[in-house]
Amino acid sequence: MGNTSNAVGSAVTPVTVEELPGLNTLGISMARIDFAPQGINPPHTHPRATEILTVMEGRILVGFVTSNPQNRLITKELQKGDVFVFPEGLIHFQKNVGNGYAVAIAALSSQNPGVITIANAIFGSNPDIAGDILAKAFQVDINLVYQIQSKF
Amino acid sequence: MGNTSNAVGSAVTPVTVEELPGLNTLGISMARIDFAPQGINPPHTHPRATEILTVMEGRILVGFVTSNPQNRLITKELQKGDVFVFPEGLIHFQKNVGNGYAVAIAALSSQNPGVITIANAIFGSNPDIAGDILAKAFQVDINLVYQIQSKF
Amino acid sequence: MGNTSNAVGSAVTPVTVEELPGLNTLGISMARIDFAPQGINPPHTHPRATEILTVMEGRILVGFVTSNPQNRLITKELQKGDVFVFPEGLIHFQKNVGNGYAVAIAALSSQNPGVITIANAIFGSNPDIAGDILAKAFQVDINLVYQIQSKF
Amino acid sequence: MGNTSNAVGSAVTPVTVEELPGLNTLGISMARIDFAPQGINPPHTHPRATEILTVMEGRILVGFVTSNPQNRLITKELQKGDVFVFPEGLIHFQKNVGNGYAVAIAALSSQNPGVITIANAIFGSNPDIAGDILAKAFQVDINLVYQIQSKF
Amino acid sequence: MGNTSNAVGSAVTPVTVEELPGLNTLGISMARIDFAPQGINPPHTHPRATEILTVMEGRILVGFVTSNPQNRLITKELQKGDVFVFPEGLIHFQKNVGNGYAVAIAALSSQNPGVITIANAIFGSNPDIAGDILAKAFQVDINLVYQIQSKF
Amino acid sequence: MGNTSNAVGSAVTPVTVEELPGLNTLGISMARIDFAPQGINPPHTHPRATEILTVMEGRILVGFVTSNPQNRLITKELQKGDVFVFPEGLIHFQKNVGNGYAVAIAALSSQNPGVITIANAIFGSNPDIAGDILAKAFQVDINLVYQIQSKF
Repeated sequence: MGNTSNAVGSAVTPVTVEELPGLNTLGISMARIDFAPQGINPPHTHPRATEILTVMEGRILVGFVTSNPQNRLITKELQKGDVFVFPEGLIHFQKNVGNGYAVAIAALSSQNPGVITIANAIFGSNPDIAGDILAKAFQVDINLVYQIQSKF
Repeated sequence: MGNTSNAVGSAVTPVTVEELPGLNTLGISMARIDFAPQGINPPHTHPRATEILTVMEGRILVGFVTSNPQNRLITKELQKGDVFVFPEGLIHFQKNVGNGYAVAIAALSSQNPGVITIANAIFGSNPDIAGDILAKAFQVDINLVYQIQSKF
Repeated sequence: MGNTSNAVGSAVTPVTVEELPGLNTLGISMARIDFAPQGINPPHTHPRATEILTVMEGRILVGFVTSNPQNRLITKELQKGDVFVFPEGLIHFQKNVGNGYAVAIAALSSQNPGVITIANAIFGSNPDIAGDILAKAFQVDINLVYQIQSKF
Repeated sequence: MGNTSNAVGSAVTPVTVEELPGLNTLGISMARIDFAPQGINPPHTHPRATEILTVMEGRILVGFVTSNPQNRLITKELQKGDVFVFPEGLIHFQKNVGNGYAVAIAALSSQNPGVITIANAIFGSNPDIAGDILAKAFQVDINLVYQIQSKF
Repeated sequence: MGNTSNAVGSAVTPVTVEELPGLNTLGISMARIDFAPQGINPPHTHPRATEILTVMEGRILVGFVTSNPQNRLITKELQKGDVFVFPEGLIHFQKNVGNGYAVAIAALSSQNPGVITIANAIFGSNPDIAGDILAKAFQVDINLVYQIQSKF
Repeated sequence: MGNTSNAVGSAVTPVTVEELPGLNTLGISMARIDFAPQGINPPHTHPRATEILTVMEGRILVGFVTSNPQNRLITKELQKGDVFVFPEGLIHFQKNVGNGYAVAIAALSSQNPGVITIANAIFGSNPDIAGDILAKAFQVDINLVYQIQSKF
């Protein structure tokens, strides 16, 4: 079981071609996701894969946002045994909304799906993205950008 | 020329299979990007395409961030005639750093590349993503999340 | 839960583009497999997909056979939470080797993976494959072929 | 010409990327199939390719079985110069129904199509598939399974 | 058999998805090529397919030219039963160098391979390509261009 | 800027995976094309890519010819900022029809598109294609074929 003692209360254990070379050319990979109570798997994308998620234990709220210009948010609360699809490249997230721990299994349509955690890529890159660009993009004061960047 | 009188100071004019049905099955599309002075094309991804950008006029700073766990920011300042590649699905942005208007042409490796503007998808979805999820993901106070959501 | 009161003691509940049109172009599908005690999911292939299997409940013996000329049998006994990969187009099977019911979730790298149950395709086709062809292929008496065909 | 002095009365001479490295990335391969009188190319699949067969000499009965749930058998008797298509991954076979030798040329839509001879994979794997699994799958007595396995 | 009473002494009878709709999604097609004595299948390309050619009757000289900058010509004289590969998109041709009629079967790695006969596309388009462009491209007098165009 | 002091009055500067290894797996490449006044980019094909052309400077006439049996010529005169698409594998060309130099940027839907200049492949291969084949294909006297071959 993954260690969920972190800021978001979740842990992702991937099984991709990096961990399992035998997946080479097979076009599929998996991940196990453990959630502490109230834990989230924060908004992220897989640049090269669609994902199907199956709930093993607990109750999980899932959601994804469609692309421009609609930016429609689709959400659903899943029970043990339910499945849900996140289309390739779209921003999505999960939250444990049950009382105990939760576990999900994700299957991804690539041996090397990649993960981009939005908050880390935007506010935690190395080096930082210039503050004025993010201030204009998110329409906030530049000092607030610096403050968020300091946490990642 | 696109109308750049908006909050970010840029305008994207796409030519995809939606605008030009003859691109069907051809695996490629384009876009023209106009920038006012200091204008930015804010952080975004194309879920189904790699992009090659060519500067037609002006000086443009470009950047993209690699995926987890590195989140490395790669940037370069481009002159007229320079080209740059944004790999499929990665978050990237451009900024006009010259004194006048700037123009770039983007070619994309899909007839239907899609665009996800990060700020709009995260803070401007319909309906909004629950504030507590974004507060935990970006490690900020929930009231700040509400404040940013009100602008999108 | 699928109804496992049948000759093989298992039930497959698929979620492909036929059941869920939204999977169109997404390149992935799923199936839930329920096993009675001693139940098997008999030897079969998916002509258009690799499969990753995750055990939800119980103990399951899984196996697949490589192609000519090796015909190597690879088997493993899986516990709850274990995952296993069946490469595209190879013959594979599962058997519940625990004491109670077992459940597994399969993810497949195609929206329309297809299923060919070997026994049904070979001995239960409509109309039947000519008996002399099967007798020569399986090196058995033709009357035995007719006898097996009568059961499918 | 291939040596057809064997249990099935046929010989397949493949030209894939293994025999001809120049086929790398070209997405196609071929095979010559020689048939003794009454010889068969027993039921098999190509896990990664569609096949087009052309009869060079003789009369050949060809057939394939569709996937679940129809398991429909499609057959046709071909003359010299006739062509026939076996869709990717489906079980198919040929039989020389003329008086003399027969020859066919198969083209396959992959540089590395693979071949799974059903009888060899099911009853001749190394090691053997457990007898109780095959007995239940083919609905025959387990001793019959052992008997067939002893021939492969 | 195709009618070879024409300027080049050959006839191509295609079997693509246009003639056989069942080839849809199967990624392969075929053609029969008949040659009168000394007949040629003039230089052409298939924009979407690699081709494997099998000689059914006669002796056929085959050739293809590699791309820039080498433009290397590869040729071989084939006998009945020989096979040869023309890589996707390269210019290739065949000539009957035996004493009688010749027949070949081509398999192509696309259901819709397309054919571009170089002489017809260059000198026989509708309308004609401007004479000065062809004169400069082929480094000949413009009146010669007009003369060749008048034959197509 | 490319050196356009040559027989056709143009220069192509490619940026493919050969020049830029980082394009590996990204499915896209580019080229800059410089034209002297009246310069042409002679009829050619890209065996593995669709091309989108953008005019940076000058006025450029572009054209392509569809495949058999239509061989339809499609042409258009482009101004600075205009874009045009050449479908994969089709023969196409450009000509500078303005008064000064012209510049265009081409984006191609492959990291390794390949270029086949028709005149060089047909009349300048190493070794030469046999004269009688070209005489019959282009319906000209064989001595004319030898004369054109001597220039390439």
